[in-house]
Amino acid sequence: MSQHVVVIGAVALGPKAACRFKRLEPDSKVTMVDQSDLISYGGCGIPYFVSGDVSDASQLQSTSFHMVRDATFFRDVKDIDVLINTGVLSIDRNSKTVRVKNVLTRREEDLSYDQLVLATGSLPKRLPIPGAGLKGVFTVSNLNEAMAIKQGLAGGEVEKAVVIGAGAIGLEMAEALADLWGIETTLIEVADQILPGIVSPNMARMAQHHLEENDVAVRLEETVRALHGTDRVEKVTTDKGSIDADMVIMAVGVAPNSDLARAAGLEVLANGAIVVNDRMQTSDPLIFAGGDCVAVANLLTGKPGYFPSGSLANRQGRVIGTNLAGGNSRFEGAVGTFIIKVFEMSLASAGMSLKTAKAEGYDALSVFVSQFDRAHFYPEKGLMYMEIIVKRGTEKVLGVQGLGGMSDAVFARVNAVAAILKYGPTTADISNLELLYAPPFSAAMDIVNALGNTAENVLRGKNKLIDVDQFAKWWQDRDGSEAVFLDCRGWGNAKPFAEKYPDDWKSIPQDELKKRMDEVPKDKPVVLICNTGVRSYEAQLNLRQRGITDTFNLQGGMATVKKWGLDI
Amino acid sequence: MSQHVVVIGAVALGPKAACRFKRLEPDSKVTMVDQSDLISYGGCGIPYFVSGDVSDASQLQSTSFHMVRDATFFRDVKDIDVLINTGVLSIDRNSKTVRVKNVLTRREEDLSYDQLVLATGSLPKRLPIPGAGLKGVFTVSNLNEAMAIKQGLAGGEVEKAVVIGAGAIGLEMAEALADLWGIETTLIEVADQILPGIVSPNMARMAQHHLEENDVAVRLEETVRALHGTDRVEKVTTDKGSIDADMVIMAVGVAPNSDLARAAGLEVLANGAIVVNDRMQTSDPLIFAGGDCVAVANLLTGKPGYFPSGSLANRQGRVIGTNLAGGNSRFEGAVGTFIIKVFEMSLASAGMSLKTAKAEGYDALSVFVSQFDRAHFYPEKGLMYMEIIVKRGTEKVLGVQGLGGMSDAVFARVNAVAAILKYGPTTADISNLELLYAPPFSAAMDIVNALGNTAENVLRGKNKLIDVDQFAKWWQDRDGSEAVFLDCRGWGNAKPFAEKYPDDWKSIPQDELKKRMDEVPKDKPVVLICNTGVRSYEAQLNLRQRGITDTFNLQGGMATVKKWGLDI
Repeated sequence: MSQHVVVIGAVALGPKAACRFKRLEPDSKVTMVDQSDLISYGGCGIPYFVSGDVSDASQLQSTSFHMVRDATFFRDVKDIDVLINTGVLSIDRNSKTVRVKNVLTRREEDLSYDQLVLATGSLPKRLPIPGAGLKGVFTVSNLNEAMAIKQGLAGGEVEKAVVIGAGAIGLEMAEALADLWGIETTLIEVADQILPGIVSPNMARMAQHHLEENDVAVRLEETVRALHGTDRVEKVTTDKGSIDADMVIMAVGVAPNSDLARAAGLEVLANGAIVVNDRMQTSDPLIFAGGDCVAVANLLTGKPGYFPSGSLANRQGRVIGTNLAGGNSRFEGAVGTFIIKVFEMSLASAGMSLKTAKAEGYDALSVFVSQFDRAHFYPEKGLMYMEIIVKRGTEKVLGVQGLGGMSDAVFARVNAVAAILKYGPTTADISNLELLYAPPFSAAMDIVNALGNTAENVLRGKNKLIDVDQFAKWWQDRDGSEAVFLDCRGWGNAKPFAEKYPDDWKSIPQDELKKRMDEVPKDKPVVLICNTGVRSYEAQLNLRQRGITDTFNLQGGMATVKKWGLDI
Repeated sequence: MSQHVVVIGAVALGPKAACRFKRLEPDSKVTMVDQSDLISYGGCGIPYFVSGDVSDASQLQSTSFHMVRDATFFRDVKDIDVLINTGVLSIDRNSKTVRVKNVLTRREEDLSYDQLVLATGSLPKRLPIPGAGLKGVFTVSNLNEAMAIKQGLAGGEVEKAVVIGAGAIGLEMAEALADLWGIETTLIEVADQILPGIVSPNMARMAQHHLEENDVAVRLEETVRALHGTDRVEKVTTDKGSIDADMVIMAVGVAPNSDLARAAGLEVLANGAIVVNDRMQTSDPLIFAGGDCVAVANLLTGKPGYFPSGSLANRQGRVIGTNLAGGNSRFEGAVGTFIIKVFEMSLASAGMSLKTAKAEGYDALSVFVSQFDRAHFYPEKGLMYMEIIVKRGTEKVLGVQGLGGMSDAVFARVNAVAAILKYGPTTADISNLELLYAPPFSAAMDIVNALGNTAENVLRGKNKLIDVDQFAKWWQDRDGSEAVFLDCRGWGNAKPFAEKYPDDWKSIPQDELKKRMDEVPKDKPVVLICNTGVRSYEAQLNLRQRGITDTFNLQGGMATVKKWGLDI
C-alpha cells in the first residue's frame, strides 16, 4: 500500500527515518521539509569545522563516500523529495495536512500526509541579556551559523573570544578557538565546575586544569550580565568584572523545538520535550517524533529523560522508519552517555553523576581510582582515572565516568559499563566484568574491575577514603589541622615532599610500615598517600591490624593531585 | 578465627587469592608453594619480553610501582610465606596436609591446611614427534623458558625460526621473532586458518595477510612430522616439505594442570579441567581452585567452559580470597573473550564463532560489515571490520568479532558487546546499543549499531550477501561463471577495474542506477560491489524494486577484498 510520509526537519533523524522507510517501502512517497538550504549534516561536527579540523562545511554534509547529501542527492539516490528553505506553519491533524511556507518566495501550500514525522530538533538557549543581538555574538545552532563563525575567524577579526557556558559545546568551541586559531579564549560558567550535571567535580577539576594548561582561561561561578559594543561586540560584563571580546559564543544549553507539536495539540512535557511511546509515536499515532525534540525513558530512573544526541537521533530515526512501514521496532530509552575530547584528554560518562543520583533520592556514593590503561609492564601506556557511582545497600551501579588520554582507552571502558547499565549491575558485576585482555590493550585486573573492587571495599567499610578536594583543604589548613600526612611510597618519591615539609609530610614506605609502626602518629587522623591509592590502601589495612583506625586513603593518589594541577 | 591457608602455585591466581585473603584476615597465615624460583609474574607478557618490548624479566614480576614480587616481597609487604623451588607431591584430604618437596634440597615435608587453593595453571601441549627434545625447541610455558628463548636470540644463534601453531601465543611469538629480531619466521598451522576456533575464516584471512605483509610466512593445513638436528634443532619436516630452523617454538595449546587434583580424588572433567562451583570450590569444599586449571560455566551455552586467561585468573583469585575469609563471592562464568595485537592490527572476539555456534547446534549465521571507527568527517580515522554471529529465529546474538588498527577502537566495540552477551541480547539490542558518541571517538551510527542493523536486514531477507571467499571463487571462475560483477561506486573508483576487465567488471554508480537500469544484466546473478557494502545494499534494493532479485551484496566491499590481499 503506497502512502505519503511527510518529514519535518532534515538534519539527522529526519533523513535517517526517511531513508529507512524508503528502503522498506520504495513505492511510497516521502517529502522532507526544512527551513534551511543546508540539510543532512553532522551537527556534532560543527566545532571541528570551526577549528579547521574539518576543512569544508560540505564534508559535514557528505556521505562516507564523498557524496554531498543535498536535495538533489535525496531525489536522485534516495527517491525522496526535499523542500528546502521551507518552514512549517502548522499541522492540521484532522485534515492530515501540514501548512508550509517557502521562506524565500513566501509561497504557502498544504501538504497532505498519511503519516508525519517531527524531526524538529532543539534550539539553543539564548541569555536574555543586553547586547545579545550584537554582531559577533553567536550560538552554535546550525551549519549556517557555524559558517558565519568561521568566516569571522578566517577574516582575522577575532583576537579575544568569550565562550559562555562550560557544557560540551562550550568546551569544544573553546578548544577550537584557542587551539587552532590561537585566540585568547575565556570560558565563563555560572556553576561551580565545568560540565555541571554531567561529570563529577573531581573529573571536572582535572579537565579544567587541562584547559588552563592549553591557555583557555576558565572562570567559574560567574554570571554574564551584559554584552557591550557599538555595532559588534567588544566587551562582556559579569557579576565579577569585565572581559574584552571580539566574539562571544553562547553555549548555555538547548531546548526541544516543539512549538509546532504543542500547537497541534500533541502531548508535550513541561521542559518542552514531545512525549513519545517506545515506538516513537506521539500522542497522535499517525505522528512520529524523535531526536532532540522528544523525551525518552531514562532507563535508570524510569522517568522521562531528555538526551539530545546525534547518535540517539540516528538510531531513533531508523526505528521510526521501520514503524512507518508497519514494522514494530522499539526504542526503549537511554541511560545517558557522554564523551568529549578536551585537547589531548578524553572525558566520558554514562548514567548518573553523584549529584544527579542524590537529587533523584538515591543514597549513593562515588568511588574513584587511577590505574594504567594497559598492563603496567607494557611500554606504551597511560594513566587513566575512573569513578563509579553506586547505591548503598543494594550496591547497584548508577553511573560511571572516565578520564584519560586520547587512545580510546576511556571510550572503551565507559562504553562497556554503559552497555550493561540498563541491566542493573552491582559492584560485583563490575568486579567481574569480562573485559578483553591482552597486555597491549588492558591489564589482567583492568581498571574497571579495580573500580568495582574498590567500590565494594568502600561500601563494606574496608577502605576509608578522602577525595582530593578534602585533601587539598586539609593540606592548606595543615597548621591548624588535626590531620597528619603519611607518604607510603618509596623514599625516592616521598623525599621532595618530606624534605620540603619536614613537619607535615611524613614518609614511611608501605613495605617498611610493619617495622616502623612506632613512628606512626596515633593521636591524629592520618591521611595515607601513595601514587594511585593501592599502597595507601594496603597501609591502611596494616594500620588497622595494629588498632590504628583513624586513617584516610587519598583516592587516586598523587597522580590525581598532579592532574588537578595542585601546587604542593 | 585464625586459620592456615595453603596455596599451590604462585603465578597469577595464587598470589591474588592469597593477598585478597590476607587483606580480609590479616591474622591468618598463608603459605604459597611454587616449584619455580620465579613467581607472581605476568605470563601474558612473555611474548613482549621475548620481543624486547619489555626489556627485563623482572618487569613482568614487578608491581606497577616497581617492586619485584619475589618471596621477600610477599613476606615483608604481604605477610605471606612463600616456599619457592618447591613441588607438591600429593594432597591428603583426610589429614588435611600437603606433601611438598624442595626440588633443590630434595627435602620433603607435610604442610597442614585449614583451607587449600589449587592454582596450578596449565601446561603447554607438546607434539609427540621425533626431535621434540632437541636444543632450540621451546614451548612458551613459563618465565624460565622465556628467558632461555631470549638468551638464544640475544646470542645471535638464530636466523630462522619455525613457530608451530597459529593460536594467540603462536602469533605473538611469530611477531616477536620477526619484528624485533628480524628472524626469518615461518608459522605452521594444521588447520585451514590461523586462530582456528577463535575467529572466523574471514577475520583470519585478513590477519594472515597482515602477518605476510610483515614477513611472517604462513603455512596452513600442514602437519609437522619431525624435528631434526644433531644436538640443536636444524630442520622441521612436515607432510608437505621441510623448513630450515635454528629455533622452534611449539605453541599448540595448553591443557589444565590437574594431576594433583585428580590424584586427590577431586572431580575433574575429561579435558582435565577441575570442576568448581560458582564460589570456586572444588568437590571438596575446603579446597578452592581457579585460573587455567579449572572449568567455569560458559554463559552462552550453559555448559562447562575452559577459558585459560590471566584476566579470569586474577578475578577468580579475588573471589577465592573473599570466600576463604568466609565471604560469599561468586564467579558466574564467562562468555569467552579474546584480543590480540598482530603487528599494527588488533583482532578481537567475544562469545562463539560461527563454526563453534554451528557445532553447538545453533541455526546460526554471521554478518560482516566494514566502517570507519570515527565520524567519517573526522580527519583521523581508520576502517574497521566487525562480524556478528546470530541465531536465526530468535535473532539472539551468539558472538562478535572485530579487526582494525591499533587505536583501541576494536577493543572498545568488542568490549561493549562482550559486556552484554550474558544478558542474551538480540540484533535489536545491538542496533540500539547506547555507545558513547562524539566525532573524535565514534560515528553517530556506530559500526556496532550498523552491524545490528545489517544482521537484522539479512535475517529478514532484505539484504542478500556473499562473503569475500565466495566472491573470490566466483571471480576466479569468472569465465565459466554465471555471475556478473557490478561496481556501484563512482566511476573514479570503478574505472581501474572496469578498464582492466571490460567483459567482467561492469560499472554503474548507485546514484545513476535508476536511470541506467536497462544496462543491468538480467539473465545472470549480479554481484554488487562498492567500497564497504552500503551503496551495494542500496543498489540491491533499487534492483529489487525493478524486479531484479537475483543479486548478491559483497559484504565488507572492496575494503575487505583489499584487506585480504586479493590481487584483482
